[in-house]
Amino acid sequence: MHVLITGANGFLGQALTRRLCAAACPDLPADISRLTLLDVAHDPLPEPGGDDRIVRLTGCVTDAAILERAVEPLPDIVFHLAAIPSGRAEEDLELGMRVNLHGSLQLLQRLCGPARPRVVLASSIGVYGTPLPAHIDDDTPIRPTLSYGAQKRALELILGDYSRRGLLQGIALRLPGIVIRPGADNGAWSLFSSHLIGSLARGRPVTVPVGREATVWLMSLPRCLDNLLLAASMPQPAETADIAWTLPCLRVSVQQIIDHFEAISPGGADHLVRIDVRPGIQEQFGNYPPLETAAALARGFQPDAHLAELVQRSLCSFPPLTYNPETP
Amino acid sequence: MHVLITGANGFLGQALTRRLCAAACPDLPADISRLTLLDVAHDPLPEPGGDDRIVRLTGCVTDAAILERAVEPLPDIVFHLAAIPSGRAEEDLELGMRVNLHGSLQLLQRLCGPARPRVVLASSIGVYGTPLPAHIDDDTPIRPTLSYGAQKRALELILGDYSRRGLLQGIALRLPGIVIRPGADNGAWSLFSSHLIGSLARGRPVTVPVGREATVWLMSLPRCLDNLLLAASMPQPAETADIAWTLPCLRVSVQQIIDHFEAISPGGADHLVRIDVRPGIQEQFGNYPPLETAAALARGFQPDAHLAELVQRSLCSFPPLTYNPETP
Repeated sequence: MHVLITGANGFLGQALTRRLCAAACPDLPADISRLTLLDVAHDPLPEPGGDDRIVRLTGCVTDAAILERAVEPLPDIVFHLAAIPSGRAEEDLELGMRVNLHGSLQLLQRLCGPARPRVVLASSIGVYGTPLPAHIDDDTPIRPTLSYGAQKRALELILGDYSRRGLLQGIALRLPGIVIRPGADNGAWSLFSSHLIGSLARGRPVTVPVGREATVWLMSLPRCLDNLLLAASMPQPAETADIAWTLPCLRVSVQQIIDHFEAISPGGADHLVRIDVRPGIQEQFGNYPPLETAAALARGFQPDAHLAELVQRSLCSFPPLTYNPETP
Repeated sequence: MHVLITGANGFLGQALTRRLCAAACPDLPADISRLTLLDVAHDPLPEPGGDDRIVRLTGCVTDAAILERAVEPLPDIVFHLAAIPSGRAEEDLELGMRVNLHGSLQLLQRLCGPARPRVVLASSIGVYGTPLPAHIDDDTPIRPTLSYGAQKRALELILGDYSRRGLLQGIALRLPGIVIRPGADNGAWSLFSSHLIGSLARGRPVTVPVGREATVWLMSLPRCLDNLLLAASMPQPAETADIAWTLPCLRVSVQQIIDHFEAISPGGADHLVRIDVRPGIQEQFGNYPPLETAAALARGFQPDAHLAELVQRSLCSFPPLTYNPETP
């Protein structure tokens, strides 16, 4: 089968690529004969040699010519990870609209057809607007207050409509903060959770743009990959446009994260943390309420079991990220 | 001020044009110096002579060149009524996407700027998907199951985002069935309510694609114009993307409509009605539950007071529609 990953050079994309290229990948229904990696730039290959099933395409989803090449032959599975993240889409509306909406719609349109490819969209909890409600579940009204959230929700709706019409098989997963992202700032306002966990794990000082009481929704990178791969292989819900689910995840406070590292190494974490609240980030990404995700749980999507597991799995996934200049 | 109406040759557009051109139009904050009417075709002017403030442009919102002319000079108020209606958008996905989403987004983008024009979007209760919930209010999750509904909701989201960012002043009103539309089938699946009321008023037989127990949400054309004009002149909600409201309206059953005409003319209505249920239409447009619209009511939007008023106002607005070939 032909698998296409957009945004393949990003944090998720690189990790997903490694997982898919592992010797035995039991996650997909068939072997991969071709893996097309699309991104605006590609890091050097981490190892000499390479996998001859992999085709790297350099370009943006806004470029019709590159999209045409990416979907030839028509992929069986598409992981659409390419996006302009929250903060950057807020700063550059035109760029966010072009990539997150127009380019993405162009991609979806090219995938429509009798072959009905599976399209896994990385959506975001950024679809929930501020002030965040006291409780979020599958029936919470979605009223984005970020351009990123509005663009993602609009894309979810069209992906759902195409799925209902039987033109493709779309699944949209609203991802929480995925940890640990490498240190480079990709423009996602939710990045501080990664910085906090990564820094405390390495005994380095860290500045956090939200208060200690701030609550975040988190998932480890390995768990996120599990969920993306489940989305790639699950049966398509029949004749419904309702294919966008908020993933179950851990809700923890900044203080709980600090306490976790203090428990492991007393006196070794708390003093490293400096709080410098940025109200816009605090309100949108530091204030997540209790979450119920019955729809996603019923379909087998899973959170990390608890904070210790999340941190452990996050750190296990951290060292091999050789494209991260900060990794020893 | 410059007012632009897209879809100006449609049912709503023509009625709105007449209202705006009436000798005294107290609905808007300033006099109209130019009224641009954009549509893919224009009916002959109903009367000789004409209003030299009116500029008619012939073209589609998907045409960049015509859009450029429509927004020069930049309008102060835009009524974006142009759309491919529900049934037609379901039959022709590509056309619906092109007009209801891509072309409409292109229009919004051209309107963004420091002048912040007011943009009134005619959205639709078609954003609510089936099965319709037992009750609908401002917090009902919006999960469209029509392409039309998905496209309208996506547009609402981007209009809301542009408004939040202070790039324009958007208000989206979700219109119920507006009665009485002229007889020509414009491809809206909700059209049967107009046919029913119009036919019974004229003593003509009518076939209805939903059962007698079917419940519909209705508004008379004059009341709809009141609400569109209120949307054009109201203050913009500050710093929020939440600018899409379901309008308050009357919820009545097909049988109640028949009973209304039977009460006026005993024996004169019931025998005219033939029921021929089309399940898709019944499910989406014949099954509307009780509705609470606190947000819209708080801003002054109004329904017709009761069925008798709705019918009377609807019929008053009916005869002058000289472009309707069925009107005597």
